[in-house]
Amino acid sequence: MTLDEIQIRRLVEEKAAALRARDPKAMVAGYGPDAVVFNLAPPLRQPGDARDPGPIEQWLSTFEGPMDAEVRDLTVAVAGDVAFCTSLNRLTATPRGRTESFDLWHRVTLGLRRLDGRWQIVHEHESVPFEMDGSFQASISLAP
Amino acid sequence: MTLDEIQIRRLVEEKAAALRARDPKAMVAGYGPDAVVFNLAPPLRQPGDARDPGPIEQWLSTFEGPMDAEVRDLTVAVAGDVAFCTSLNRLTATPRGRTESFDLWHRVTLGLRRLDGRWQIVHEHESVPFEMDGSFQASISLAP
Repeated sequence: MTLDEIQIRRLVEEKAAALRARDPKAMVAGYGPDAVVFNLAPPLRQPGDARDPGPIEQWLSTFEGPMDAEVRDLTVAVAGDVAFCTSLNRLTATPRGRTESFDLWHRVTLGLRRLDGRWQIVHEHESVPFEMDGSFQASISLAP
Repeated sequence: MTLDEIQIRRLVEEKAAALRARDPKAMVAGYGPDAVVFNLAPPLRQPGDARDPGPIEQWLSTFEGPMDAEVRDLTVAVAGDVAFCTSLNRLTATPRGRTESFDLWHRVTLGLRRLDGRWQIVHEHESVPFEMDGSFQASISLAP
């Protein structure tokens, strides 16, 4: 494994650890400027600066108790100052006012650039697929 | 624009043109071996070889009449033999047995590697977001 791949894998693990710690500033620390972000929630592309911890803080406030994140099947492709990663991630959380937690397995793609000597996330794409049976329900109960 | 970026943009446009032509072989021509594919439809990750035109042929048969594809806001990041692209794409099609076509705007990320001197798609992630209002409906009516 190259040093670049080690650094990128560490960045991915730090992001998951930041979620477990419910730390908004740490959760956005990996983003670069002008990141193109495709979230689980609408709109198609997130407006604003991904480095702003405000929206993350707001999102975290909709859950109570411990949160967990798992990164599985991480692949990293890197050359020069460009890289991308793919993984299947599990988010575990309890919506505020509920007693039961949920597990949401979803697909994650990251696009990275080395800027100022540091790998930074300039693209993030998180999603679940949806049912093509006419219901158009998001497939929130899948597992790898 | 570098020659690499020109080649990658051409690959993206050829893929859209292949869909307009309803040509399954042309639609899979850009994939490399062992591609990690996250589709609009379940499962989380597509099984099998993305270079197999069979599943695409089956999918095309669920639509009748002309199909259209538009690629908007294409970004390309490339270094050495690794690249990734992001875009917002529109699919226009008429389900078999229906009279009205639909437009589906969705997010697309491609991961590419230059293999045997040719840019090939080794990762594809296509999705729409879903509503976080408790309905878990896929957001199929968004536009950029």
